[in-house]
Amino acid sequence: MDRNAPVGVFDSGIGGLTVAREIMRQTPEERIVYFGDTARVPYGSKSQDTIVRYSRQIIRFLRTKGVKAIVIACNTASAYALEIVAKESDIPIIGVVNAGARAAVSATRNGKIGVIGTEATVRSGVYTKVMQEMRPDIEVTGKACPLFVPLVEEGLWHDSVTDEMASRYLTPLKGRYIDTLVMGCTHYPLLRSTLRRLLGDEVTLVNPAYETAIELKELLKAHGLNRNPEDPLEGEKYQFYVSDLAEKFTDFATSILPDEVKETQKINIEEY
Amino acid sequence: MDRNAPVGVFDSGIGGLTVAREIMRQTPEERIVYFGDTARVPYGSKSQDTIVRYSRQIIRFLRTKGVKAIVIACNTASAYALEIVAKESDIPIIGVVNAGARAAVSATRNGKIGVIGTEATVRSGVYTKVMQEMRPDIEVTGKACPLFVPLVEEGLWHDSVTDEMASRYLTPLKGRYIDTLVMGCTHYPLLRSTLRRLLGDEVTLVNPAYETAIELKELLKAHGLNRNPEDPLEGEKYQFYVSDLAEKFTDFATSILPDEVKETQKINIEEY
Repeated sequence: MDRNAPVGVFDSGIGGLTVAREIMRQTPEERIVYFGDTARVPYGSKSQDTIVRYSRQIIRFLRTKGVKAIVIACNTASAYALEIVAKESDIPIIGVVNAGARAAVSATRNGKIGVIGTEATVRSGVYTKVMQEMRPDIEVTGKACPLFVPLVEEGLWHDSVTDEMASRYLTPLKGRYIDTLVMGCTHYPLLRSTLRRLLGDEVTLVNPAYETAIELKELLKAHGLNRNPEDPLEGEKYQFYVSDLAEKFTDFATSILPDEVKETQKINIEEY
Repeated sequence: MDRNAPVGVFDSGIGGLTVAREIMRQTPEERIVYFGDTARVPYGSKSQDTIVRYSRQIIRFLRTKGVKAIVIACNTASAYALEIVAKESDIPIIGVVNAGARAAVSATRNGKIGVIGTEATVRSGVYTKVMQEMRPDIEVTGKACPLFVPLVEEGLWHDSVTDEMASRYLTPLKGRYIDTLVMGCTHYPLLRSTLRRLLGDEVTLVNPAYETAIELKELLKAHGLNRNPEDPLEGEKYQFYVSDLAEKFTDFATSILPDEVKETQKINIEEY
């Protein structure tokens, strides 16, 4: 495998850009091919079957770009598809769940961890499973927050309606005295200040995007796959592909990534 | 064409069941094959390209079921795909927009009509175009209400958060002194009581689902395609297909249709 090859990163839409951003920060030498499945977003209300099928299509697409490793930058796809697709693959594939779970387990002091995510992520129970494998006495309380994604996508990051919904979603978690909360959906870090205000300073907020970028860095090193920053770049360092609405994606990506995104290409993912 | 053949009805998901329900009420003799694209819902935030491609796939699927006519029970797909797919088809295809527009134009007294819908439906300007073709002096104010679909799907039909969002969405329409409001998304009739309370009794609420069922009835008669209720039924009178989460769909359909839905079949719509 070519060390100079790009890393593939995919998500159901735009949320995974928070993971791409962390990878750009922590391993600035790496090239990235990002795919956002904007035609079929959201994944959080779909079945495992469908999520696995979509993930396989995306992985086949990313392989056509010669990626050396793949990051599933979507909690729902990590929850349902990672274990299956990783077994089928001859290049390393990691997801956001393991890194997020590990960080939460090392952050908690009282052993009570909350996980917020989409309906599908919470239903999967994957965070509980992974965290209890690390430390069996951990008590995990999951809470699906299905309105957070549409609220974030509407730009209501600081809004009374978002406050009200967040307050309802967090009530059962506060009742369990959690001291650590996993933001188990890539959109949620954009609501960090609301969550912080409602939970107070004593609760640690875990952002799996950050942890995943660290895991990727270590993985590439362990496999001798980390890119030499002195090797020549062929073509764009960062490439962006979506299944719909390329221009809207370009605008959003430019607003959250460190550098301007020049172009996003739309592809028909159903052909892969 | 066989008069005994079923009518095809499709939507991006569950919302079109409000149209199917009206068809069942107004033409109880007709057989229906319903398809809900629950894997790729919502359509309201997608591009025209994608909506047309998805609509063509669904029409190809419905044709395999031998339908004699098709109702696009989705405002967004009607707005973007109807004109294109109707031209390609040798069986009649109708959408919800024309019937809704006609009812609004005949209901208004002051010529000021509001249209609420998804981002894509409102952006298309299709209601304005169709209504102004009928009566050029009509003043149409469109307002996208992107959070209504997730709020309805979360069951928050009567809730302070829905009230607050509805109040924000309706403010510009009230400022234009509309006397008629088209509920331009099949989910919205489920918020009828909230809309009614905020707008007052002087504003007429138009439900395109109801108007579409009337249009279908007249169309079948005009083409000599209305089913003879005495003809024998082969198989189930009403058949339901989705692209994901068949059981959840069955539960929802049973809750809003007059009779229990026994079974929903999941198909891979990408193969059509």
